[in-house]
This record gives sequence, C-alpha cells and structure tokens, in this order.
Amino acid sequence: MQRVGRWAQKVRLGWLLACVGMAFSGSAAALGDDGMWLFNKPPKSILKAKYGFEPDQAWFDHLQRSSVRFNSGGSGSFVSSNGLVLTNHHVGADALQKLSSKDKNYLAEGFYAKTQDHEVKCVDLELNVLISMEDVTDRVNAAVPKQGTLAESEKARRAIMNTIEQESTEKTGLRSDVITLYNGGQYHLYRYKKYTDVRLVFAPEQDIAFFGGDPDNFEYPRYDLDICFFRVYDNGKPAIIEHYLQWAHGGAADGELIFVSGHPGKTDRLDTVAHLDYLRDLSLPTTLNWLMRNEVMLLNYSDRSGENARRAREDLFGIQNSRKAQIGRLAGLQDPAVMAAKRASEEVLRDSAEGISSLLRDTVSSALNDIHAALKTLRTIRKEVLLLEEGRAFHCHPFQTARILVRMAEEDSKPNADRLREYRQSNRESLEQMLFSEAPIYDDLEMLKLADGLSMLITEAGADNQLVVKVLNGKSPRNRAAELIQGSRLKDAAFRRKLAQGGKVAIEASKDPMIQLALLVDGPARKVRRTLEEQVDEPLRQAYAKIAKARFDVLGTEVYPDATFTLRLAFGIVKGYDELGQPLPPWTTLGGAYQHSADHQNREPFNLPKRWLDRKDQLKLDTPFNFVSTVDIIGGNSGSPVVNRKGQFVGIIFDGNLESLVWDFVYTEKVGRAIAVHSAAIEETLRKLYDAGALADELGK
Amino acid sequence: MQRVGRWAQKVRLGWLLACVGMAFSGSAAALGDDGMWLFNKPPKSILKAKYGFEPDQAWFDHLQRSSVRFNSGGSGSFVSSNGLVLTNHHVGADALQKLSSKDKNYLAEGFYAKTQDHEVKCVDLELNVLISMEDVTDRVNAAVPKQGTLAESEKARRAIMNTIEQESTEKTGLRSDVITLYNGGQYHLYRYKKYTDVRLVFAPEQDIAFFGGDPDNFEYPRYDLDICFFRVYDNGKPAIIEHYLQWAHGGAADGELIFVSGHPGKTDRLDTVAHLDYLRDLSLPTTLNWLMRNEVMLLNYSDRSGENARRAREDLFGIQNSRKAQIGRLAGLQDPAVMAAKRASEEVLRDSAEGISSLLRDTVSSALNDIHAALKTLRTIRKEVLLLEEGRAFHCHPFQTARILVRMAEEDSKPNADRLREYRQSNRESLEQMLFSEAPIYDDLEMLKLADGLSMLITEAGADNQLVVKVLNGKSPRNRAAELIQGSRLKDAAFRRKLAQGGKVAIEASKDPMIQLALLVDGPARKVRRTLEEQVDEPLRQAYAKIAKARFDVLGTEVYPDATFTLRLAFGIVKGYDELGQPLPPWTTLGGAYQHSADHQNREPFNLPKRWLDRKDQLKLDTPFNFVSTVDIIGGNSGSPVVNRKGQFVGIIFDGNLESLVWDFVYTEKVGRAIAVHSAAIEETLRKLYDAGALADELGK
Repeated sequence: MQRVGRWAQKVRLGWLLACVGMAFSGSAAALGDDGMWLFNKPPKSILKAKYGFEPDQAWFDHLQRSSVRFNSGGSGSFVSSNGLVLTNHHVGADALQKLSSKDKNYLAEGFYAKTQDHEVKCVDLELNVLISMEDVTDRVNAAVPKQGTLAESEKARRAIMNTIEQESTEKTGLRSDVITLYNGGQYHLYRYKKYTDVRLVFAPEQDIAFFGGDPDNFEYPRYDLDICFFRVYDNGKPAIIEHYLQWAHGGAADGELIFVSGHPGKTDRLDTVAHLDYLRDLSLPTTLNWLMRNEVMLLNYSDRSGENARRAREDLFGIQNSRKAQIGRLAGLQDPAVMAAKRASEEVLRDSAEGISSLLRDTVSSALNDIHAALKTLRTIRKEVLLLEEGRAFHCHPFQTARILVRMAEEDSKPNADRLREYRQSNRESLEQMLFSEAPIYDDLEMLKLADGLSMLITEAGADNQLVVKVLNGKSPRNRAAELIQGSRLKDAAFRRKLAQGGKVAIEASKDPMIQLALLVDGPARKVRRTLEEQVDEPLRQAYAKIAKARFDVLGTEVYPDATFTLRLAFGIVKGYDELGQPLPPWTTLGGAYQHSADHQNREPFNLPKRWLDRKDQLKLDTPFNFVSTVDIIGGNSGSPVVNRKGQFVGIIFDGNLESLVWDFVYTEKVGRAIAVHSAAIEETLRKLYDAGALADELGK
Repeated sequence: MQRVGRWAQKVRLGWLLACVGMAFSGSAAALGDDGMWLFNKPPKSILKAKYGFEPDQAWFDHLQRSSVRFNSGGSGSFVSSNGLVLTNHHVGADALQKLSSKDKNYLAEGFYAKTQDHEVKCVDLELNVLISMEDVTDRVNAAVPKQGTLAESEKARRAIMNTIEQESTEKTGLRSDVITLYNGGQYHLYRYKKYTDVRLVFAPEQDIAFFGGDPDNFEYPRYDLDICFFRVYDNGKPAIIEHYLQWAHGGAADGELIFVSGHPGKTDRLDTVAHLDYLRDLSLPTTLNWLMRNEVMLLNYSDRSGENARRAREDLFGIQNSRKAQIGRLAGLQDPAVMAAKRASEEVLRDSAEGISSLLRDTVSSALNDIHAALKTLRTIRKEVLLLEEGRAFHCHPFQTARILVRMAEEDSKPNADRLREYRQSNRESLEQMLFSEAPIYDDLEMLKLADGLSMLITEAGADNQLVVKVLNGKSPRNRAAELIQGSRLKDAAFRRKLAQGGKVAIEASKDPMIQLALLVDGPARKVRRTLEEQVDEPLRQAYAKIAKARFDVLGTEVYPDATFTLRLAFGIVKGYDELGQPLPPWTTLGGAYQHSADHQNREPFNLPKRWLDRKDQLKLDTPFNFVSTVDIIGGNSGSPVVNRKGQFVGIIFDGNLESLVWDFVYTEKVGRAIAVHSAAIEETLRKLYDAGALADELGK
C-alpha cells in the first residue's frame, strides 16, 4: 500500500531530514525509467530519446490539473466533469472510518450512492489541486543573512516562507505552500485549489479492496479492487471540472509507455552516506519498534470484540502498512550492495567536483562534513524530539488537539512571519479543518494509547526525570491516562472551538487536564524543536543546497529532486518480471482472484465478498485486474492515475512490490514494480457486481 | 497463562539476576497468604496461627512426591497409580506441537487415547519428580576462597556445584541439581527422578483449552478447560506410582483453605531498589521490544496460510503470553506506589540492621553498593550478552543446536568441575534429550527468524562492527539467513548425533555453515559470558548472600526465597474479588462459557468447539468451571495441582489475573488472584463431552 503513512508524516526526523540529499543513481544519463519529475521541469529529453514521445505543454498542464492530492495522505484524479474523484480504497479509508459507527461500517461493508443526493459528506477530508508553481529560490535565499548564525538563518528563512505564502493566499485566495526542493537547493511556491466539501460516492467491501490483507500487501501477483470514488462540491453543488481524465476502456498493453501523476511522499535517494547510516542505525529501527509496539497493542484491543476491531481498523491498517514498508526499507539499507553503491556514488561526486575545480571539491567536502556534524547533533536530541515534540509520549487524539490549541493561542500572538510553520496564517483553514473535525473519538482506545505512550516515556526519559515525574503526577501510566482522558472535554469539537475562540486567556485559565498537560510539556517541546530546526534542519538545508548546486554543475540540471508529497510525473512501461526464476505476468485477471482465494481455503484475509461469490458467473473472468509497471513510485502515490500517451486513464496505482521498497534509496527496474488496478476491472466490476452502471457511465465524461 | 515462558527462561539477565534479592513484603509477620515456601522449610507456624492447620511430615512428603516438573516449563501432578500426569494444555502444548504435522494437528484438534496402546510417545518431553533436598551451603561456601578474586570465586563455586551434582548422580542415579536459593544465601542439592518416556493420553481442542485467547489471557472471569493428560512409562510399561493425588469430586468451597504445589519460575521480590530500577529501565523494555518484534513476525507469517499458522502456533502463543505478562510486570514497576514501598522496605532493612549492630548496618550498606556496582557493569555488557551469548542475533533452531554441539565438544575436553554449568556431566542426559530431539524444523520459519535476528544484530552492534561483517559475509540478512539455513544439515537429528560423537575433531572439520557460524561467534560469546559470570553474577551472589544473612538476623528464618523454578508450596483461600466496584464470583460455570461466547458473537477466539455446541444439553451447566484464590503463584506454576487439607486434588492452576502480575515484585491479595480449573469441570466434561469415562474413572485411583 503506497499511501503516505500518517506515521511517516509524523516522524519528522524521517520526514524532514530525508528530503535532503545527494546521490547519483537516477541521473538522467542512465535513461532508466526512474524519476519523480517536477511538472515545471519534466523529463522531456529522456521521453524523446528513450520513447520518441514529445508531448506539448497542454498535455502536461491537463494531467497536472486532473491530479488531486488527498491531504489525509495519498493521490487521486478527476475522472468526470462533475467533480468525480477516483482514489484508492485505502486512501479513502480514513474518511470511511470517520463516517462509520457501530451501526454502519462504511469501511468494511462498502457503499454506493445511486444518486447524488445519497452521497455522504466526509467529516474532515480536504482535497488539493495544484494550479501553479513558481520558483522563489532567489527570494528565499536573499532574505537569509549571509553571515548570520544558524538561528538567525532559520528564523529568516521561516519568516520569508510564511510571508510569501501569506501574500500569495491574500492575492489569489488559493492554498499556498513554499516547497523545499533538492533538500534546500530550491524553493517553489505551489498554489492549490482546495476542496473541503467532499462526498463519498462509492467504495467496495474492504475484503476485496484489500484482498489478501497484510500477507499480500506489497506483493504481486495481486487481486485488489483498491478503489474509492468521491465527488467534490462547490457551494453545495457538484463542482464543474475543466480538467479531468478520459477513460481508456481497454487499459494499457504489455510494454506500453505509461505515466503516473501523483504525490510521492518521501524518498531518500539524495541522502549522503552519513545520512543513510543515520536512517539505518537509528531512525528506521526506532520507528519500527514503535510501529510494532502499536501494532501489538491494537491487535490485542481489536481481538476483544468486533466493535473494538472496527474502531481500530484504520489505525491498525496504517501501522501494519508502515511496518511492512519500513522493514523493506531497512532491508535495503542493510544490504551491503546498496550501501556500497551509495558510497561509490559519493566518491564519484567528490572526484567529479575536483575535476571541475578545487573550490567545488572543497565545497562538497565541507558540505558532507556539515551534514555529518548536524546528524551528530540529531543523535543527541532525537529521543526528546520523538517523545515531546512529535508527542509519542502522549500519543492520543485529545493530546494532539490540546497541543494545537495551546500552540495556536501562543503563535497567534506573534506576527505571522515569526510563527511556527504549521501555524502560519496561510495554513489556518487546513489546520482548523483538522482541529474542529467531528470524527468520533473512543475513550477506551485513547486511554490505551496514552497509557502506552506514558509507559514509553518512563522507559525512554527515565522514571526520575523531573518532567516525567510532573507528567505522571504520582500515578501509574494507566491511572494517569484514565484520569486525563476521562477528565478532558476535548473530544467534543464544540468545546475545542470555544477554547480556540477564547485564545491565550482561555487556554491559560482552562481546567481541562489535557490542556494543562499540553501547557506543561510545551516549553521543553519547543526547546528541543528549536534545537532541531536551528542546529539540525538549517545546517542540513544549507549543506544540501551546496551539494545540489555541485550536482547541477556536474550532472546538468535535468535531475529530479527527492519526493516531498507534492505533484510529480513518473513514467515507465507495463512489464512483468521474474521472481525466483518464475516469470510473473504483466497483469492478473478477475478470475485469478477466485483461484487465489481457493488456494488459501478462502480463509481470512483471502475471503471474497458474498457479492463476488454470488455473481461470479456474470463476470468476464479474463478481464485484467491488477497490473505491474516499471513506473517510479513510492508511498503517497497511492491513488495516482496511470495514463497513456493520450493522457487517458488506464489504471490507478495502489501499491509497489516488496522489491520496490528499496526505491526509497535507489531505483532499479529489474524486479521492482508499481502495482495498479486496471481500468477494465473497475468498469467490469462496477457494472456486473455493484449495479453501479450509472457511475461507470460517468467515467471520463 | 502461568507457564514459565521459554523466553523468560532464555533471558538470562532476567532469569539469573532477578533470582537474587532483598525486600520485606512477604515477611512472615504479616500473616498474608503469600509465600512460595520450600518443602523442607514449610510455613508451619503461619498455617497453624492463621488457619489452625497442622499437617504432619507425611502430608508434605506425599504432596511433594505427587508433584511433577515439566522441563519444557511448567508443573503437573500424578493423579493415578498408573503414572497418569495432569497438567495444563498450554504446558503440554510444546509436546503437542512437536507431535503435530500438516496431517494431524494435536495442538488444535485435541486427542484421546481410549486405551493405553493408543497413547502417543512425546518427542522430547522430560518430567522430573523431586525426591530429596539437602542443604549444601556450607560445602559450597567452604570451597570458595575467602580472599580470592571474583574470577577465582566464580570458578571455585562453579566447580564445587558441578562436583556435588556429579557425585550425587553417580551415587543415586538421580538427576541432581544444586539450586541457588535466597539469591546466594543458600545452596540446596535437589535430586529428581526423571521420566523421559512420556506419552500423550488426552488433550481437549485448543479452542476450549485457551477459550478467549490472548484477549482473555490473564483475565477473570474465565472459562478454560486448560488441561492435558500424559502418562509416564518405565521400561515400556506405565510407571507404578506410589504418591499420587486423591480426587475431590466436589472441588473446594468458597473460603476454603487450599494449597498449591508447583514450580514458580521467577520472582523478584527480594531485589534491591537498584535492581528493580535495572529491570524497569532496561531489562523489561528490551525484552518487551524483542517479544513484540517476534510476535509481529510470527503473526505475519501465520496469516499467509493455515499451515504456516499451525507451524508457528506454539511459538506464537509463548510469545504472546510472555508479552502480556511482561507488560503487567513493567506496569507494576512503573507504579510509583510499588516503588515507594520497595524504597521504604530497603530503609527499614538498613534501620533494623543498625538496631542490631553498626557492623551489620555496614555490611548491608556495602552489599547494596556492591549490587549497584555489579548492575552498572551489567548495563555495559547487556547488549552483547543478549545478542551473542543468549543468541538473539542468531535466533533459530539450527544455530541453537550448532552452539550446543560446538560447546559440548569444547567442554568435554575439560574436567567436569571446570565446565560451563549446562555442560556438566550430571546434566548430560537432559541436554541430549533436547539436542537429539526429532521435533520437526521448518526451513521457512527458521529463515525468517534468523534473518530478523541478523537484522537486529546490525542495528544493535553496528553495520561496521568487525564481527557483524564476518557474520554477514557480505550479504544482506535475508540472503545470509537463506544460505545458512538451506546449507545446514543440522535439522537432521541423526546428523547432530554423528557430529556429537565426532567430538572436537568433527566440529572443527565440519563444513556445515551453521557450525562454522557457531564457531565464529563462540569466542566473543564466551568472553562476554565470562564477564557476566565473574563481574556481575558472582558479586551479586556474594552481596545478596550478605543481605540474606542480615535479613535472617532481622526477621528470623521463616522467610521464603524468590522463585527458582523449583518445587514450592503455597496456600490461600478460594475467594472472589471486586473489580471496578463489581463483585466477581469465586468461580464460573460451564454454562457461563456459552454465555461468554454468545457475548462475543461466537467470533474467534470466543468460539466453542463443535463438540461443546452439539452436546450442550448433556452438560450440567452449573458445574463450577474456573475458580480464583489468593494462593501465591507465578509463571511456572501452570499445571500445579490445587489440593485441600486432605491433600485431595480440587483443581489445577492455569493462570493468574492481570492484577497478580505485580506479584513478581510484591504480593497483595486485595485483587490479585490465581485462576484454576475446577476438578468437577474436568470430570464432567471428560464424561459428557469427550466420551472419556475410562480416563475420568482412573482419576485418583
């Protein structure tokens, strides 16, 4: 499953730092199918040289505007002029979970709105469409004092980014984000049209959307109808969409050139060896421990009752998905061949720089040293960052909202330019969309999570640590968690609104124990964050900027940046591969799903929905179901449309195979593959199994 | 589930060190129902004072000889003159798993041998019956040089223990173990009759033996038929047993005084505060991480197919059981009230010692300091101990056997007195019973475990560590694991026998890659073990011995030692308790099981076996099923008989509730309870559900 793990998003260490870098795999010269290219810097020469394909600007513009970002972590596309959006079931799952209750389980049972008035408004889903990109690198860099301290540089950079975004929002009314590319080498201003009235149209049963479950996740052959339809509304009516994808009924042929337009979340291909060492030695293992700890906790909770299982389903899926992905990534970094290649490429950069000038070589060398030094600092503060600033020690929904309320009140009292990034004015609407969400909160589950977080805090920070003692207030983790969760009113969205309106005065006067906890922790958390931003993030950005410039000097400018959960274009061909000597076909069929189920005695998670069993004889069983390609994707690309040369929809990305997990660090197309649902399977099942002919008819119209 | 986790057994840090200590909870003066008493030092005065019960020596002797230790980790008892042994299903599970294959799943489906010739011989099960105990403290201490270095002391102590055992084995033919009690305060020689021809007689379906599964584990109310019958054979015939328990058909009444005779594995009640800090800060969290990592791995493996699930079942159960227990223990140590009590009791000891003499006070103070210092050393070597000496880095069956073969060859070349403890001559038969076991080994599962171990080795020891580089031999963990497992012939028991016979020459000439790995690792592993034994274990033993003596001086000698997986006597009363204001009854009924299943929509693991559903109307539904008592137990007590004042069997311990997990450190009878299967439920279900009237008729005869 290639959604951006919410966990990955939260792991600022992995997230921020790994989007910073240097390496050579993926140079244009190789002419491989790799690359997550910027739409304002597409790989035109490669497409021409390798595939003789020369699309015009309109082709790129149309695909860009047909692409949709799910703020909850994933991609999608417009597939009708009436605002119909197609994504993966597992990308829509967050919205499906939040709509569900004890009485109606959208996530498990699926849904189809036969007419528009049956479409169900999502609780807090925000979709973004990228309208424009503008290079603001010079303006950002000009605002940063040349001889300033790291703290001054960080502050100035943050200020100019907040300001550029604010100006843009005021001028255009669009969501405006300054994106850091090439890990500090460039800054681009992205403007998005934002949709917050998003309604559920169709979802299949989870049993077929995620057929094969965790065992088959990141595997191929696959048989998943991992799709979900939403519709965006403007002023209470379906939005009229100019750019949407035509539907290719027959899909793509074996060997055909295809494109993927989506939002890859995070790659680390440009990381230095020292940086990869850090990921391998500390970042990934810590994250994995944390994921497994949560997985066990949620499995245990889920086993207790069907209702528990329903409540934890989406969290559990996200964790299991991340766990499998992170294990694959760690395996990549623990492969001596991968690290040897990375070391070699770093040598090549030094040597090539030397070939240009000794000044360039010195620049590269000192930048590599600076990265090494910044990571040394990171090693000393990472625990505190995770516990306090990331909030793993207080891992529950009420604390997350308390943290936002406390900080929002504080940050609002500062000029916009000085605020922490997520509290900048231009991000306010998106932040409030999340903060005031009416999504259900379950006390029992939140208590469990918080008690575990507090227990971890004791282990990691020490039982005698002064802050720990204050946090626990003389109680055991379990008792303290119960007291905090039961005593807090923050699960009530109206209460959150009221507190937010009351500002700093209301926050400081609040008797809510979770607000008081957030206040208690805020000082130490901010302190370690400041160290992180000033002593780690900023020097990394500066050093990686130097390396990026050297790279352009050495390699030319047709080089793509690491993924940043922003829109990218990738390409490749439909192609099977060999696994342990066995050839795997470019696609599976609907009939294969029945066989796969039978091969596993139809036991969970290899059980097909009743509808699939009842109507088997109505299906064209040789319809292609899932297909693989060499297209370069990663987590966040889930739900990305796959299109042909004509820009027509031929499928939807939902996963990569296990062998693609190493793509985080290095792309290889020998056995690594992206996995997509075929357009023909979508049409066939909508019509024959789901009585959703009207929906099928709308596709591409 | 209160079996000694195999994991706990392997965690030498937890295991060895925690059986060493000092504290005051559990002093005789309190007259609580606590205490895991030695059979040669039973709590006569407490039983008399509190319950007016004065059994004679024959009462104790009979109960002692009716008790059985399962070497695989658990307890049991003789319940007929024909060698019939009753234990828990989850204690027998290891044997059931090893007997099972793809075609016959004894563990899941259960078994009943209608006649003796249908009884199935277990693969490698060894049962022990304690015949005699002898205090050899003076002899052990006399052999240790007064002014020697720690290394000399450790060596001398090991030598005299090996020698005493060897003499005893030669003299009596009995298995002879020198047991360290009071964490170094006393040494007793235990002699056991050993049974290695053990045959399976009866097991119910796992669905009812472990009804409620992991969610209900360590919970009450419970409804588990957690029983399993074996029969011991002598010379191919059922052994004639003199001491076996009479059967109390009606079980025990509410409030009745009862006794438990079994093998509690490990408690830490006598640990100093510094020692508990170590457990809380490092030992337990590390173990928990490791358990959860393995749990996730085995769950993922199990999900792939029914056969995988069968192969991993027993390992997975053990891990989940340990995980839940360790979480409970950690929660105890993270409870400020528990630690405050421990700190207070340490103060009391100091003060009381001072009250006797300043010399005694100084002795106690210096011993406390010595313990602190030894644990400081332990903190520096613990990682290496776990990875190399415990072998977590090479966590698979073939490595375990390779390690034994390599060391056996080496140790055999030394005098018995100088050998590592587990290679002493007197232990040879038990070691070979395990080493040459014909239990099935599954390559896929072993590869998975080994790859994970190697990955952990890289994380914990560092990718550039010289030994790590040699171990991986330029390959990724997964590839190296595949190469080692597929290339090794050690899964073949005959090959193991041949290698063992060949001795050092054969080992050193062996081309088997796993043997070569074990040879590679043996030097560093032995080195860290030496440091552990000389710089940690030995000073701890010496310091705790001083504290134990001070305790006797202060408290008198009627004090029980921490648990050591040796036979102990505990007592208490049948008694319900209040949970969150709700009174819980002293016992549940057979009918309650049906209700509990219905309350969970009969979904797994709350599903009853078909036999139970089909024959519900034949059952007396108000028959008591599981009952709770204040008896002081812990992991390892699983399968222990519960007897009344007459020494008659009234039930069998199979678990403690969550609130009893803190008993590792401190006993409280307010809500902590032992849970047992009632004798009446055993008889009723054998007769009515399992057509096992003949077996029921044999009970107590």
